[in-house]
Amino acid sequence: MCGGEAQLLGTVQAVCLPFVQLHVTGATMSVSQEDFEKASGQLKLLKTDPGNEVKLKIYALFKQATEGPCSSAKPGMLDFVKKAKWDAWNSLGSLSKEDARQKYVELVSSLVSESSSQVKDTTAERKGGYETIELTTKDNITKIMLNRPEKKNAINEQMYKEIMQALEEAAKDDSVITVITGSGDYYCSGNDLTGFISIKPSEIEKMTKYGGSLLEDFVNHFIDFPKPLIAVVNGPAVGVSATILGLFDIVYATDRATFHTPFSELGQSPEGCSSYLFPKMMGLGKANEMLLFNRKLTAQEACARGLVTEVFPDQTFQKEVWRRLKTFASYPKNSLALSKQLIRNTEKEKLHAVNSQECKLLCERWQSDEFMNAIVSFFQKKAKL
Amino acid sequence: MCGGEAQLLGTVQAVCLPFVQLHVTGATMSVSQEDFEKASGQLKLLKTDPGNEVKLKIYALFKQATEGPCSSAKPGMLDFVKKAKWDAWNSLGSLSKEDARQKYVELVSSLVSESSSQVKDTTAERKGGYETIELTTKDNITKIMLNRPEKKNAINEQMYKEIMQALEEAAKDDSVITVITGSGDYYCSGNDLTGFISIKPSEIEKMTKYGGSLLEDFVNHFIDFPKPLIAVVNGPAVGVSATILGLFDIVYATDRATFHTPFSELGQSPEGCSSYLFPKMMGLGKANEMLLFNRKLTAQEACARGLVTEVFPDQTFQKEVWRRLKTFASYPKNSLALSKQLIRNTEKEKLHAVNSQECKLLCERWQSDEFMNAIVSFFQKKAKL
Amino acid sequence: MCGGEAQLLGTVQAVCLPFVQLHVTGATMSVSQEDFEKASGQLKLLKTDPGNEVKLKIYALFKQATEGPCSSAKPGMLDFVKKAKWDAWNSLGSLSKEDARQKYVELVSSLVSESSSQVKDTTAERKGGYETIELTTKDNITKIMLNRPEKKNAINEQMYKEIMQALEEAAKDDSVITVITGSGDYYCSGNDLTGFISIKPSEIEKMTKYGGSLLEDFVNHFIDFPKPLIAVVNGPAVGVSATILGLFDIVYATDRATFHTPFSELGQSPEGCSSYLFPKMMGLGKANEMLLFNRKLTAQEACARGLVTEVFPDQTFQKEVWRRLKTFASYPKNSLALSKQLIRNTEKEKLHAVNSQECKLLCERWQSDEFMNAIVSFFQKKAKL
Repeated sequence: MCGGEAQLLGTVQAVCLPFVQLHVTGATMSVSQEDFEKASGQLKLLKTDPGNEVKLKIYALFKQATEGPCSSAKPGMLDFVKKAKWDAWNSLGSLSKEDARQKYVELVSSLVSESSSQVKDTTAERKGGYETIELTTKDNITKIMLNRPEKKNAINEQMYKEIMQALEEAAKDDSVITVITGSGDYYCSGNDLTGFISIKPSEIEKMTKYGGSLLEDFVNHFIDFPKPLIAVVNGPAVGVSATILGLFDIVYATDRATFHTPFSELGQSPEGCSSYLFPKMMGLGKANEMLLFNRKLTAQEACARGLVTEVFPDQTFQKEVWRRLKTFASYPKNSLALSKQLIRNTEKEKLHAVNSQECKLLCERWQSDEFMNAIVSFFQKKAKL
Repeated sequence: MCGGEAQLLGTVQAVCLPFVQLHVTGATMSVSQEDFEKASGQLKLLKTDPGNEVKLKIYALFKQATEGPCSSAKPGMLDFVKKAKWDAWNSLGSLSKEDARQKYVELVSSLVSESSSQVKDTTAERKGGYETIELTTKDNITKIMLNRPEKKNAINEQMYKEIMQALEEAAKDDSVITVITGSGDYYCSGNDLTGFISIKPSEIEKMTKYGGSLLEDFVNHFIDFPKPLIAVVNGPAVGVSATILGLFDIVYATDRATFHTPFSELGQSPEGCSSYLFPKMMGLGKANEMLLFNRKLTAQEACARGLVTEVFPDQTFQKEVWRRLKTFASYPKNSLALSKQLIRNTEKEKLHAVNSQECKLLCERWQSDEFMNAIVSFFQKKAKL
Repeated sequence: MCGGEAQLLGTVQAVCLPFVQLHVTGATMSVSQEDFEKASGQLKLLKTDPGNEVKLKIYALFKQATEGPCSSAKPGMLDFVKKAKWDAWNSLGSLSKEDARQKYVELVSSLVSESSSQVKDTTAERKGGYETIELTTKDNITKIMLNRPEKKNAINEQMYKEIMQALEEAAKDDSVITVITGSGDYYCSGNDLTGFISIKPSEIEKMTKYGGSLLEDFVNHFIDFPKPLIAVVNGPAVGVSATILGLFDIVYATDRATFHTPFSELGQSPEGCSSYLFPKMMGLGKANEMLLFNRKLTAQEACARGLVTEVFPDQTFQKEVWRRLKTFASYPKNSLALSKQLIRNTEKEKLHAVNSQECKLLCERWQSDEFMNAIVSFFQKKAKL
């Protein structure tokens, strides 16, 4: 039996109040009884609250181990606490008391071990295999840091690929939100084309197509990313790193940041779905100032136009933003992911079509005389300086 | 004969200038002649101008009663006054002089009776059959007032249904605009789930589906409402009462109002078409602060983001807003309704699809463990206070 | 042979640095050798840089005339300057040295002649055949000036047609951007219906349909215009001249400008795609204040709502704006046009559908009693003043 109303109401507090109060009553089992009692005692050693889900599991295993399968009536729908506890216990089905004790002991000792290891390992977990970015997870936040500060975090071919791979990892891991930021003074200075210079003449068309296809794939990763994606813009953002901000769910910027997309000056055309998202977000005229006429925005201007969600003074930027992000990462994971997907889904088909059109036009532009002439002018200006 | 140009130009003033000048020339009829003349004289007693449409009808009946059917040539398209009078007269077709006299006398006496009754009955007409709202019509404005001030106007099942019914009435009545406002200090505190607590465990899935279907129906009433719909937000707006503001044609708010949609914190997801309309109106980042990350907005912030059309100081809020609404309600009814529908129609299909997707996801969320856990945490926090 | 790396790097400067340094080395040809050398010398007389495209052509003809067809290896893709020069030379194919010399001499003499004629002819080229507008081209900018200042630039039937014709010309000419502005104190006071007054009654329906069809065609010219289109709003904009601003790529306004669309007051409905673009740009509520409830905006308000891109003090308006437009017109023409089309194409189908629906509703409105009554009231108010 699961017990009467009064008893259940009494145990509500055991679940909701600080964890050490969970199991004050002893239990009388023969098999592994000692270990079981010891485990129950160890719960007091935990330094942090393991969260409601784990506490419900502990509750359920304790009940199963001491009373056996749940046989009480299911509580009403809106009696949330009772129902949550009933569900947890009932989900154990016909698990034997012995097995429940065993699992209880294992769960508690894993928690205790985790708790003590937290003292030594307070740094974030860093994922290997990346050279141009740094990928870490901590506090339910996966952080992708563009990490070529000596190149102002310019995106070369390898970085394009590593960002895509990191987004794929982040989509699958246990984190609640994903953050992209830059190392050093710049957020990102846009494309780094240095590596392309050795291309042979006979491969120009092929390489142009490859570049367009790489870009399309890159942008698709942002369109399809399933969790809240947040940009922490720590400095100037140029070119594709600025246009693609329209696909982020939140964009926080330091007041040192600027936003510049000088496409037409270089004989090129907009990408990152900006040809669709910028007019939608800031109105056609203000979008065209950026996308057609190369206007560079301050962080405050970008915020007034909706490209940036909020601007922070540079001194307090990192502290303020990460404090806020930790709060965001404490919200229910699925609720956030599914809500984000709900919002994105009304646009997804359109965004893929726009991305495809943008990359197609860019490929044509890269092979145009105008692009060549614009680059000549660009070098000419540089030479004059 | 309808008379020559000079005569018609002379009668323009009769239609356009104050009403008592309409019929200065006598008429010589035998049947009911006395009543007819008396009626003509009574027009001077009217305290208010009955409006151009009624005046044109009076003109037409007078002409038909004294001269018979209209047989003059139709005036040119842009000679508006002449044409309006010709149309009115011509619309009476072959109505006999006697019948025209009869209708003239009836129309005038109804106006006189209405005019004198206005002295006693200056209050708005209140429609019966409602318990959770108050439905009134006055000055061409139908007002739906949420009327559970002791519950901060929380919407229970009955109020959902009564609002839908009131919108159906308002769509059909003679009013030009429809207004929704709240009674007391709150505009609306969102869903009131108290009534659901008695639900039996075996009916949980069924009731969840019922809730989703009720919500979808409710939101559809706002999507499809055919006249200008205006929110007079007299205090805080929470949950669905805030999200659905995106479907209003104008939103006026007191500076005391706040706007809060804490979905993810409660393991839920956005509704009221906000997953589509909020990003469209305020940009993705600023929408996500509200819809994903529970940010509560002040009235000024909501205005800067387009959710509120204008903010007024609380002291002058009601006076200023209702003065303005009376002006709005004096504009041509069909022109407003058809223009509103023109604007809405480009979005309607999309809005219905979004509403359907939102309600589907919410039903899933209501049955999720995360929702249960979020509610447990919510109660836990409440208990700690 | 095109020469080795060292030689090519040396000629980079010849293309990039001021034009007079292009041809310092002599050439030894027999046919027309004298003219050829003379032409080469005349290049020093040019007062303005003819631009990279022309310089590349001169380079190519010089190489072809002195060395014959290009036979060197194509440079790498990202060696932009080398490749641009190689492409120019290579594009001449098997052109004989004699023909190359001939074309070189012709090109240079046309440049010299153009250069000296610029001293006398500094005014813009004015296109003939227009009465209600003035169409000029200068500095790669085609300017359409509404030119009925005595009528506050009200648009009559002829002006509707002339604007369409001018847009067709501007689409095809060599200009980079197109500008619409007004002559005198007003930008444009909207429709001029004076010419319609003589319409015969029997032709009302026909003329209404004609008006709707003319408007639809007019708006379609703005939807489909292929180059950046910029409004220089020099004073008040009323009715269709205000609504259609949503279809411009940039809208610059003097602080004297106002924006007024009093549709419903006159029993009409929105046009110029404003029923779709205004809610998109400024949010539904703020759009409805204008489109349904006749609110007149100041330039600053219009800017805050996205209808205007930037506001300038009236004293410096013309100077500041035209300085900026000249810079815009110096950017690569195709890059701007194709980027603008990319942005527009995601909306084009929708805009045509909206335009069609708006014009259909307006035709109905023009034949409605409400429109007649609204016009009667309008004349009544005017008469009372």
